[in-house]
Amino acid sequence: MPADSIGLYTPRHDRDEKSMYPSPMLTINYANCLSARVGSHGLDSDHLDPAGDLARGVASLTQKLASTRGTGWERWRELARGEMRKAHVPAIKELVATHKPSASNLVVLGIGGSALGNIALHSALRPPTWNLLSDEQRGGPRLFVLDNVDPVNVGAVLDFCKHNGGYDRTIFNVISKSGETAETASQFMIIRDLLKRELGDGYARNIVAITDPEKGTMRQICDAEGFVTLPVPEGVGGRFSVLSPVGLFSAAMCGIDIDALLEGANAMDERCSNEELAKNPAAMLAALLVELGTKKGKPNHVLMPYANSLYLLADWYRQLWAESLGKQKDLSGEEVFAGFTPIKALGTTDQHSQVQLYREGPNDKVLGLIEVEDFGTDKGAIPSGLGVENLNYLEGKTLEELMNAEKRATEFALNESHRPNFTIRFPRVDAHHVGEFIMLWQIATSYAGLMLNIDAYDQPAVELGKRATFGLMGRAGFEEFKTKVDEGLAETEHQL
Amino acid sequence: MPADSIGLYTPRHDRDEKSMYPSPMLTINYANCLSARVGSHGLDSDHLDPAGDLARGVASLTQKLASTRGTGWERWRELARGEMRKAHVPAIKELVATHKPSASNLVVLGIGGSALGNIALHSALRPPTWNLLSDEQRGGPRLFVLDNVDPVNVGAVLDFCKHNGGYDRTIFNVISKSGETAETASQFMIIRDLLKRELGDGYARNIVAITDPEKGTMRQICDAEGFVTLPVPEGVGGRFSVLSPVGLFSAAMCGIDIDALLEGANAMDERCSNEELAKNPAAMLAALLVELGTKKGKPNHVLMPYANSLYLLADWYRQLWAESLGKQKDLSGEEVFAGFTPIKALGTTDQHSQVQLYREGPNDKVLGLIEVEDFGTDKGAIPSGLGVENLNYLEGKTLEELMNAEKRATEFALNESHRPNFTIRFPRVDAHHVGEFIMLWQIATSYAGLMLNIDAYDQPAVELGKRATFGLMGRAGFEEFKTKVDEGLAETEHQL
Repeated sequence: MPADSIGLYTPRHDRDEKSMYPSPMLTINYANCLSARVGSHGLDSDHLDPAGDLARGVASLTQKLASTRGTGWERWRELARGEMRKAHVPAIKELVATHKPSASNLVVLGIGGSALGNIALHSALRPPTWNLLSDEQRGGPRLFVLDNVDPVNVGAVLDFCKHNGGYDRTIFNVISKSGETAETASQFMIIRDLLKRELGDGYARNIVAITDPEKGTMRQICDAEGFVTLPVPEGVGGRFSVLSPVGLFSAAMCGIDIDALLEGANAMDERCSNEELAKNPAAMLAALLVELGTKKGKPNHVLMPYANSLYLLADWYRQLWAESLGKQKDLSGEEVFAGFTPIKALGTTDQHSQVQLYREGPNDKVLGLIEVEDFGTDKGAIPSGLGVENLNYLEGKTLEELMNAEKRATEFALNESHRPNFTIRFPRVDAHHVGEFIMLWQIATSYAGLMLNIDAYDQPAVELGKRATFGLMGRAGFEEFKTKVDEGLAETEHQL
Repeated sequence: MPADSIGLYTPRHDRDEKSMYPSPMLTINYANCLSARVGSHGLDSDHLDPAGDLARGVASLTQKLASTRGTGWERWRELARGEMRKAHVPAIKELVATHKPSASNLVVLGIGGSALGNIALHSALRPPTWNLLSDEQRGGPRLFVLDNVDPVNVGAVLDFCKHNGGYDRTIFNVISKSGETAETASQFMIIRDLLKRELGDGYARNIVAITDPEKGTMRQICDAEGFVTLPVPEGVGGRFSVLSPVGLFSAAMCGIDIDALLEGANAMDERCSNEELAKNPAAMLAALLVELGTKKGKPNHVLMPYANSLYLLADWYRQLWAESLGKQKDLSGEEVFAGFTPIKALGTTDQHSQVQLYREGPNDKVLGLIEVEDFGTDKGAIPSGLGVENLNYLEGKTLEELMNAEKRATEFALNESHRPNFTIRFPRVDAHHVGEFIMLWQIATSYAGLMLNIDAYDQPAVELGKRATFGLMGRAGFEEFKTKVDEGLAETEHQL
């Protein structure tokens, strides 16, 4: 961003990022989840007593997680360190070095866990006007994540790339472990055909695939067509893959400091290995949300950042929390219909949309507010000169002050209505702290799975819809599903 | 959008929009809300019997609404017709004729009801790449809606406008009935000062204010500074204002057919004046959601369009549904804690994020799916040539077919898990049908308010947070609130 700019709220360049580390950490303040603040809708602080049942139970879960980390479906926990990091980061940087200088556009083809992390990192750590800036101002490609098969959107993005940079300066990053996800496969088939027609034999140079390193349909395609690939590591599920090449390649292409991201994740992992509940942020977060969710009638979990840049991290969180914990059966096979409904909101914006409901509607939510201490902009003050008495109080204040005053006021108002809430505080929004945030929620999810006694790593309920789609789309072997759908949804008179 | 384009999924220009009217209407299919499809989690179809209590109650509500339309807080219902329409539309078109030819950027300053409708209309009815296109391709200004005081976002947008078109080709559209909304007032003070410095005495030409036509702080400012204004009509609340100048000016600036929008709203209004429940879409929608919400334990209401363009209409719906119906007390003053939690989702994307929870988690939701029959793109087929057996079934199909097959598959899968759902079907996404959709939900909201016996037009719970913000920001007269907040949120040891 040009430095002359508008004199107000422009990014500061006068700080040495590195000198901030070890930086002030992400903090969680949970006082407003306690009965002292929100009455019977909160937890008694005794309940969190270090010598109590809950804290002792958590300590044993921490031991259990220490023993399973890096194995089975807990392999994601090693992504930010050790062998996996050593294998991934140099390979990513090498590919970025090859592709970044000549790329005007980067188009990610992926959905769910192959898109949400990419979108969240970009939105958190790049300027909101990124795609509007010139090649020179950006210093990296525009990013488009095609996480749907909406034909209008797919068409508009491809059309834009054709006329801005052209296909030869557009890298398509297809992300699919199996290659059989219908949405991503369809997009890929369209783009492969398009590139072959437009770029001729060398089309494969514009495709970077992130897929299973050994098996599956996409692997087979990559081997046959000669695409360069990065791995979806074995044992890393989609919703836990943002710190693998799945999330890191597009981030690094756009200039995000992936080392700082992984360092932040690592720093949080350290903290979350502490057996003491009161010193383990992920364990505390999971304990609060599970206890309030299951014992205080609060199954709806709102995440409400007071920062536009963090809003789409709430979409990433939505998948993690919903898909991991929303389970019909527990590990013993008993029907439990577990899970919490994650809801994303944005402060201050949603104060003018949702806070009426959050304060006066059903008391069925826990609100997670996110606060940013330092937005990293020059603190230009709101100017005087308007001369209107009712607005004088704003003169000389900054937008940062207003943002944080509104957050604090909302916290107060929620307490007055006995609505439990907590605050996650970012000292500032940078790769390190975003890495901390990601690891915090991933580990909290693994704790919550254990606390609910469910499998946090499967998603059995997604299968039926996939099969029904195959049936409706005429895939051989799935005919019975088409019959079932057509019978089940036969036209009725119940429409107007 | 250039017509040469990519040969696939490009907008069709071969249809006469006008010839479509009277067009096929928006339809609602609610068969999947009935016990025949979803067991005890649904309503018995007897319950909706034309001679039954519910239908008779609804008929009397329809009569009541007919008698109050155009009066009190029901004035929004006349925005699309009669005197209000005759007063607003020509004034808007005149202003658009003045400003559009010389505007590269339009920046809306507003929040809540002064932003959500603007964003929704733009996203629904303009290409997703709108702001990325050239002036010539767009034929209207880029649109930025500053609905938050995030300093990074405000700074980035202003900086972009300065260097792309410049402030002299940027129109600032400040929307605030009173002028005292802290977020909008702060932005306005910054921009007024900036324009005075950059453009000198003529700065007022670049400001269009939408505010109270007679009284209030913003009115006073407009009169003193000579801004051109459009009215926030008396008796029209923020969340019901999208069909007033509040929503229409920015839409018309960007080339949206506001006549077709209002015609669509009118057409839906006609249908929703029918006393017969089975022929009144808004009454049916309200009846289903209120009955399922209050009697079947389904207070969470998901709106899940299968079309990217309609996703942000779900944000507009969120405010309408949450703020109107989330009320602690009913009209007799009894504590009821009424209301439903609106949740936005996107198909197919959220099938890979939320559907696991929607099928296996707590059965506490009603899912409103939105289907688009015709996406208005050339139906280029998914190409063959890849030669992978598992993906052959996709060849020759279109993305439209896939999108709608996935929607239908999800509907089937939800039914199998006894999760009530309904489908709103757009014949296509155009101004007429978006107008229908808006009016449908506004009228449904007024029905739901009556059914819950609450005041759908106030928002008392928002006040405390506003006062606390005033206190924290040092506004005279609100000192006590600062004291209360500081005491209530005093630091504790409950943080890590």
